[in-house]
Amino acid sequence: MKIGLIGYGTIGCGVAELLLEKRRHSDLQLVKIADIDVERQRDFMPEKNLFTRNATEILNDPEIDTVIELMGGIEPARSYILSAFANGKDVVTANKALLSSCWKEIMEKANLHKRRIRFEASVGGGIPLLSAISSGLSANKIEAVYGIINGTTNYILTRMEKTRESFPNALAEAQKKGYAEADPSFDIDGIDSSHKLAILSSLCFGKTSVVSSIYTEGIRRITHFDISCAAELGYSIKLLGISRMDKDRMIIRVHPTMLKKESLLSSVSDVYNAVYIKPDLTGPLLFFGRGAGRYPTASAVYADLLALKNNEEFYIPQVEVVEPVDISEVISKYYIRVQAEDKPGVLAMITGVLAEHNVSIASCIQKERGKTVPIIMITHEAKEGAIASSLSKIDKNPFIKEESLKIRIEEV
Amino acid sequence: MKIGLIGYGTIGCGVAELLLEKRRHSDLQLVKIADIDVERQRDFMPEKNLFTRNATEILNDPEIDTVIELMGGIEPARSYILSAFANGKDVVTANKALLSSCWKEIMEKANLHKRRIRFEASVGGGIPLLSAISSGLSANKIEAVYGIINGTTNYILTRMEKTRESFPNALAEAQKKGYAEADPSFDIDGIDSSHKLAILSSLCFGKTSVVSSIYTEGIRRITHFDISCAAELGYSIKLLGISRMDKDRMIIRVHPTMLKKESLLSSVSDVYNAVYIKPDLTGPLLFFGRGAGRYPTASAVYADLLALKNNEEFYIPQVEVVEPVDISEVISKYYIRVQAEDKPGVLAMITGVLAEHNVSIASCIQKERGKTVPIIMITHEAKEGAIASSLSKIDKNPFIKEESLKIRIEEV
Repeated sequence: MKIGLIGYGTIGCGVAELLLEKRRHSDLQLVKIADIDVERQRDFMPEKNLFTRNATEILNDPEIDTVIELMGGIEPARSYILSAFANGKDVVTANKALLSSCWKEIMEKANLHKRRIRFEASVGGGIPLLSAISSGLSANKIEAVYGIINGTTNYILTRMEKTRESFPNALAEAQKKGYAEADPSFDIDGIDSSHKLAILSSLCFGKTSVVSSIYTEGIRRITHFDISCAAELGYSIKLLGISRMDKDRMIIRVHPTMLKKESLLSSVSDVYNAVYIKPDLTGPLLFFGRGAGRYPTASAVYADLLALKNNEEFYIPQVEVVEPVDISEVISKYYIRVQAEDKPGVLAMITGVLAEHNVSIASCIQKERGKTVPIIMITHEAKEGAIASSLSKIDKNPFIKEESLKIRIEEV
Repeated sequence: MKIGLIGYGTIGCGVAELLLEKRRHSDLQLVKIADIDVERQRDFMPEKNLFTRNATEILNDPEIDTVIELMGGIEPARSYILSAFANGKDVVTANKALLSSCWKEIMEKANLHKRRIRFEASVGGGIPLLSAISSGLSANKIEAVYGIINGTTNYILTRMEKTRESFPNALAEAQKKGYAEADPSFDIDGIDSSHKLAILSSLCFGKTSVVSSIYTEGIRRITHFDISCAAELGYSIKLLGISRMDKDRMIIRVHPTMLKKESLLSSVSDVYNAVYIKPDLTGPLLFFGRGAGRYPTASAVYADLLALKNNEEFYIPQVEVVEPVDISEVISKYYIRVQAEDKPGVLAMITGVLAEHNVSIASCIQKERGKTVPIIMITHEAKEGAIASSLSKIDKNPFIKEESLKIRIEEV
C-alpha cells in the first residue's frame, strides 16, 4: 500500500511518526505528505523530499493507492476526497464535519468508483468504536446511543465539579492545557458533538438527521451552583449526544444532561469520552477512552489503514436522512433553576405556572443566597414544550431577574 | 457458508434462533446441529431433520465449511475442532477452557491446514472485545489488562455490597436466578476468570501462562464485613483478572481486588463484565457489557461467522508460554483483616510482626464486635511474600482465632 497524507497538523504528524518510525509496517508505505505549510517545524519531521505544498500531487499520483485526509473542514477536503475516489484511491479520514454534512455524496461517490472509505478516528478518537458497531455487532439492531463525545466540554465540567471552578475559569484552564481552542465555541456549544452524533446515528440506525436539524445546546449556561445542586440530588452533569429510535421516529439531540451518580457515564471524567449503546441482543455496552489527541487518533488512522490493506469489511448502511422529532415533543424529567427575588408569593407563582402546564414537581430545593434566591426543582416526566412554555411565562414575571435554566435528566 | 453446530445448549439454541429465524442471512446457512440429546425440548426447536446425535456427521460432511463448537470442556471438543481443521473447515468457538489449555496445538493445527478460528464469545460474552484488540488496536503495544470477566462472582459481590447479604445467601440467590451453577466452584474460585485471562494475555501480549501457573484466588472468604470496611475506606471489592508485562516478565493473577470507588471498574455491577486495557498509543480503554447469556453470546458467535464470511483478518499472534512472576514477588498495597481476641497487647503484637517484615501501615480500623474483634489495616506497598509471612506468623499466635485475610489493592 502506497499512502499519501494530506494535512500535516498534530494528528498528521502522529500518523507519519507511526508509519515512518514507531510502528513501521512493510505493507504501509507513506510516500508523500501535502500541507500548505511545509516549512514550520513540527515534533516529527521526515525527509524534506516527502513534502509537497500541492495536494493534487498526491491525488494525481498513480502510484498512490490510499489517501489519508487530515485537513478537517468541508473544503477543500471534500473535493480532495471525491477526487481521490475518482482516481481509484481508497480514503481514510478523521473529518467529522465533512462526514456529517456530506455523507450521502461521499458514500455515493465511493460506491460509484468502487472505492472504500474508513473513518474510525472521526468519533471517539482512539476508541475502536465504529468498527465494533459495524462488524462486532452485526447481528444486532441498535436501539439507542448515548455519548460523551467531546473531551473539551467533559474536561470543563469535570473541573467545575471537582475543583469548584466557574465556567470561565475552567474554560481558560482547558485552553491553557491545549484541550480547548482559542475560539472554543465549536466544542462548548455542542457543535462538534452534533457532528459525531450524526455519524454514530448513520452507522447505528442507518438513519440520521442533517446537523442543522439536531437540537444542540452547549454548556455555557451551566454554573458551578447547578453542578453542586445536581451532586446534592445524586447526579452529575455531562454534555451528552443522544440518538434513539422511538418506533420509526428519530430522537436526536445534544445537550447538558443530568445522570445518576451510579451510572457508568457519570463516572467518565476529564478529557475522556465514552459511548453507551443499546444493541438488542447484547444488551447495553459501553466503550471508554481518549476521544482526541495525537497518538490516540493516529492509532485509529493506522488501524483503518491496516484494515484496508487486509481487505476487512466495513459495513456502511444505506443511510436515510430524516426529520427528527421536534425537541418540544421530547418527554423527559427536568432540573429547573429559577433565580427569583426573595418575596412572598414567588414560589406560589412558579408552582402555579408549572401546574397550569401539567408539569408535576418531584422535589424542590430553595437556598438563601442574598437578594435573589435560586429555586431548584426536579420535575416528573413532562413534555419539553410544556416546560419551555412554563419557563417563558415564569420569566416574564418581574420577580424573575435572570433567564431560567432547564437541564434534562436521563436514566442511562 | 454452510454451517454445522455442535452443542445445542442455551447458547447453541440462541445461535440457531438467530441464524434460522431472527437474523437470517442468505450467506449464513445452518445445515446441521449435533447434540447427544436431540429429544429434550428447548426454547427454540428447528425441524427435526437438522439434528443428529453424531458430531462426525458434521465433521465429515464435505458440504459444511464452518463448524461452531459450543459444547464446552476439553474433550471431545478438542478432537472435534482439530478434525474440523483437518477436514478443511473453519471454526467458531466460545470454549475458553479449551483455548486456555490447548492454545498452541489448536493454532498450529489451524495454520497447518490453512484454516481459521474465531472465538469472540470466549471472553466478555457479547462485548466486541477480542476483535477490537486484534484489529482496532493494531498500532499499539498493550501494557496491561484488568478485567471483571466473570458475571457470577460480580453479581454475588454486588449483592453483598448493595443488600448486605452474606456470601452463602448471595450465592444461593445467584443460583436461583440461573447466574451460578449447582456446583459453583468453577466461577467463585476464579477458575473461569483464569481461563479468560490466559486468552486475553495471548492476544494482548503474545505471551501467556499455563492456567495452572496463574495465581488464582476466588471470593469464598470475602465477608460482608470486608465489603463494608472497604466501602468505608472508599473502595469496592471486585474479582479481577490482572495481566501485565513488567519489563519482560509477566505478572498474571486472579483474585479479589480493592478498587477506588471513583474508578470505572468499581462501578461495574451485577452480572456485567468490563475489561480495562492500557495500549501505549490510545491510553486506557474500557469495554463494558454482558459477559454471558444466550443472546449476548450468540451475538458474538454470529459476528464471528459474518467476519469469516467477509474474510476479515483476525490477527492471532505467535504466543510464547512463560512462567509468570511468583505471587510472592508481586508488590501491592494490602487490606488486612485479623480476627483477634480483645486482649491487651494484641495490636502491639500484630503491628510488631508487620514491622519486622518491613510492612508499613497506612491506616487502621478497629471495631468492637463481641469477644473477638476484627482489626483492619491498609498497608503501604509491600511484597506479597512479606505480607504472607507476617500473616502466617500472626496467625500462630493463640489470640488469633481465625485465618487472617489479605485483599490486594490496585489503582486502575
